[in-house]
Formats: sequence, C-alpha cells, structure tokens
Amino acid sequence: MEVFTDKELMRRWSRSVRAAGETVALVPTMGALHEGHLRLVELAAQQADRVVVSIYVNPTQFDRAEDLQKYPRTLHSDLKALEGTRCRAVFAPTEMYLPGNTTWVSVDGLTDHLCGRTRPGHFRGVTTIVSKLLHVVEPDVAIFGNKDYQQRRVLEQMVQDQDLAIGVIAAPTVRELDGLAMSSRNARLSTSARAAAVAIPRALDAATAQFLAGERSVRGLIGPARAALEAAGGIIDYVEVADDSTLVPYTSDAVLNAPAVLAVAVFFGGVRLIDNAALR
Amino acid sequence: MEVFTDKELMRRWSRSVRAAGETVALVPTMGALHEGHLRLVELAAQQADRVVVSIYVNPTQFDRAEDLQKYPRTLHSDLKALEGTRCRAVFAPTEMYLPGNTTWVSVDGLTDHLCGRTRPGHFRGVTTIVSKLLHVVEPDVAIFGNKDYQQRRVLEQMVQDQDLAIGVIAAPTVRELDGLAMSSRNARLSTSARAAAVAIPRALDAATAQFLAGERSVRGLIGPARAALEAAGGIIDYVEVADDSTLVPYTSDAVLNAPAVLAVAVFFGGVRLIDNAALR
Repeated sequence: MEVFTDKELMRRWSRSVRAAGETVALVPTMGALHEGHLRLVELAAQQADRVVVSIYVNPTQFDRAEDLQKYPRTLHSDLKALEGTRCRAVFAPTEMYLPGNTTWVSVDGLTDHLCGRTRPGHFRGVTTIVSKLLHVVEPDVAIFGNKDYQQRRVLEQMVQDQDLAIGVIAAPTVRELDGLAMSSRNARLSTSARAAAVAIPRALDAATAQFLAGERSVRGLIGPARAALEAAGGIIDYVEVADDSTLVPYTSDAVLNAPAVLAVAVFFGGVRLIDNAALR
Repeated sequence: MEVFTDKELMRRWSRSVRAAGETVALVPTMGALHEGHLRLVELAAQQADRVVVSIYVNPTQFDRAEDLQKYPRTLHSDLKALEGTRCRAVFAPTEMYLPGNTTWVSVDGLTDHLCGRTRPGHFRGVTTIVSKLLHVVEPDVAIFGNKDYQQRRVLEQMVQDQDLAIGVIAAPTVRELDGLAMSSRNARLSTSARAAAVAIPRALDAATAQFLAGERSVRGLIGPARAALEAAGGIIDYVEVADDSTLVPYTSDAVLNAPAVLAVAVFFGGVRLIDNAALR
C-alpha cells in the first residue's frame, strides 16, 4: 500500500495504473476510519482493479469551527486499518487549498433541503473538495456511503452536471449489531446517548414496516417516528419524507405516490446523527 | 479534421490521442470565428500535438436573453475556416446542459470587479461551461485570448483551485490594422461606430506611452483615456486600472507601484467592446 501526500505524485500513480489498462476506484474519507469505511473499500475493490482511499479533513465543509477543531485525526491507526484491506494507495494530503483559493463548486436545489437547511455552506464545501479530489486522483469510479443520502445524491448530480467520466457507486449503510448506522461521530456518544440512539434505526424500521404494510400518508409515517425519537430523548433537527431524487420534502398532509426517502437528523447527547430509509 | 457533437465520442478521441503519447490543446470558442481565433489555433499547435476547437454558444454566460438570441451561429463557415488550420478536431455539441442541471463552478473575488460588476452571472456561466468542456476534452493545455483579460485570469484561477492538471496559456490579443481588438462583436458595429471604436486602442496606446514615460498616477492614466473615449462618442461602462493578478481596481487617487492592467469596456453604437493594456 502506497501513501501519497503530494497531489502530483498521487495523480502520477493513478495515471500509470490506468495507462497499464487497469481501473481506479476512489473512496473519499475524512479519516477516523471504522468498519463502515472498510466495507466501502471492499465494495470499491469489486468495482475497480485498484482502490485509492483519500483521507482529508476538509475545513470548508464544517459549518462550525468547533466541529472542525474537534474532528478526530487518527492517520496512524487509519493507515493500519487499511493495511488489512484491498486498498492499494492512500492519498493523505496535508493541505488541499492553496492560499488565495476562491473557486467553489456548488449544486443548487438538492442542497436547499434536509441537512442543507440547517448546515449553511456544508454541501458547497463537500462538492468543492470532492471535485478537487476527483481531479487529483482521476478515478474511474467513486464510492459514497448511502448513510449520507443527500450527500450521495448531490455528488451524483455534480458528477453528471460537470461531465466527469466517473461512475458514482452508492454503498449500503453499514450498521452496528443493534442497527445504529456506523459513523465516526458515534465515538463521541456517551454510554447513555449511545444506548438511546438505537431509537433512530428502530424508528426507521418501524416506518418502513408501516410503508410496506400500505401506509402512504406522510403524517402517518413521520408522526410515529418523531414521537419515538423524542421519547428516547432525541432532539430532532429534522424528520422528513422527501422525493428520493429531487430531495424535495413532502408536506405532512401529502400522500406518497413516488419513490421517497425517510431522512432524519437527530441529536443524542449533543451529537448530531443522520440516517435514512428508502420508501419504495 | 474530425467533428464531434457527442461528448463521449469527443472524450474517446482525446483519450486515444493521449494514450498514443501525444498531447492535446483545447481552444474553447463560441464560434463566429475570426482571424483572432485562428491565431489561437496556431498558438495551440505550438503547445501540443493535436488541437481541438470547441464551438458552443453557452447560454449560461449571457446576462441578457436578447444577446444570446442575437449571437451569430455560423458553424458551416467556422468549420470551413478551421479546415485551413492545424485544428485536428472540432467539438460542436448541440447541448451541454442536461435537463435538471444545477451545478455551478464559480470564482469569488476576481469576478467582483470590472465586467463582473455590470454583467451579473456572466463569469459563473463562463467558469461552469469551461469546466465542463475541460472534463469532456481532457486537454493538456487550454488557450484563452488575453483580450478577455479578466476571463483569462478567472479561468486560470479556476484551473489552479480545482486541481486540474491543465496548463493555461494566455494568447496575445490579435488586432485589426488600425489597432481595434478582433472580436465577433465587431461585425455588429455600424460603419461609423466601427470608425469611432479605434478610439479604444488609441486610448490604451496613449495611456501605455504615458506609463512608460513615468506616469504612475491612476487619475493621470485614466483621465485622458476616459476623455478620449467620450470625445469619440463612446459610452463608458468602465475604465479602470486594476492589479493585474487580483483585478482589484485602484482608486483614482492611487499611485501605481505593482504590475497593473488598464481595462476598458465601452459601448460604440450600442455594441459593448472590451480591451486592455498591461502597465508594467
């Protein structure tokens, strides 16, 4: 496994792989790798000959300076974790933005809703850094976890609109034994908050079961989920049913007649957790 | 010379050229080709093995619907003109934006001044389309005319900030015999407006001569230029001396002590013309 901190050396490696007729998959991460990331690497290895994992804590996607400061930086253990996988190269730049950087890539519309509503500038930071990473690594495919459903849709749209010749692969959410979606944020949960947070997958499962049993009223799907999350002590940022392509949320009196996603953002013990379930 | 309207076929051609060890230069244009464009092709042929010219009237960079409608579309004669040059492929897409396209590439700061002040959204349209064209053609170098000084600086910044492995080449402005910068807009000038417009290169030449003779006061450089343009019947959009890198205009009471550019936008007979001169 090779580790690059320099953009040019990373690009050269990727180009030499592709010149040899092999394909490259990129798994962009901010480090603090957990089992969920390692499964992305496995999926990536099924999609391309060589897997590159990027590790970079991107300052421009944090809407709160405090979160950026607190974000775990664990490069040493991240590299160790990747050594046991089919990852062939790690791109761990010390800095991605030159002084005077003033260029932004943004996606309108899709970023107006859900997390975009409460995290100003977040998605612009995500699309800008991923665009840069794609230009450096020049992969054939890029893998994004479906836990961050809106992020995955936004990046998919960006790749399409920008005419990038890159396939976007959505990876299924990896869950703990009790169903909680894996996230580097989970490490920040207190024992009691961790226990309470299981309300998230349970609420999603219950809503999915209701949907499969024929419930199509948005109020009927959202109402019990909100109640269960609040009963568990969660502070709700949003619980929405949205069109699974445009991400426009349905009003509570709507009735579903198209593929949708139930998306939630809830604080447990001060830690903001997100998750989602397909309603189709 | 090959002509592609399809993005995938264009990219495939470019990739096969590069796979064969040759380099590709892109000259992005909106068609209505004149001698100035053909000189860009010549310059491009000195920079790379194969030259691609793109011809696409980009709707997103027009700040007035009327201008878009009036823009000359002369593909047949453009192709004919290119046949006599070292252009090896033409990319003439019928459409570059898929329905639902919502992704923008923008450069802050540099686009606040000069043309950016009076043409809202213009540069965002330019950076977005050029970004897309660079992703389709995947050139080693791209050539931009220096007549559109701000545009060239903005695109240079975009390519750098976006980590694109593409060299940006600035091509010298090509001029008519009397000094007027070549532009597809010149065809829209009436005979009298065309005659009057020579005031632009004359005003720039006079200011440059003053500068070379030691004039460093911004007022002393701009004042006579404004007066000469107005005396010739020009309606001034702006006459500014700006830092040649940041494009921040100097106030009229400033004294120059760094490389600058004198940039003008003036209407003659209702046609907006731009030009510039280096002050260094």
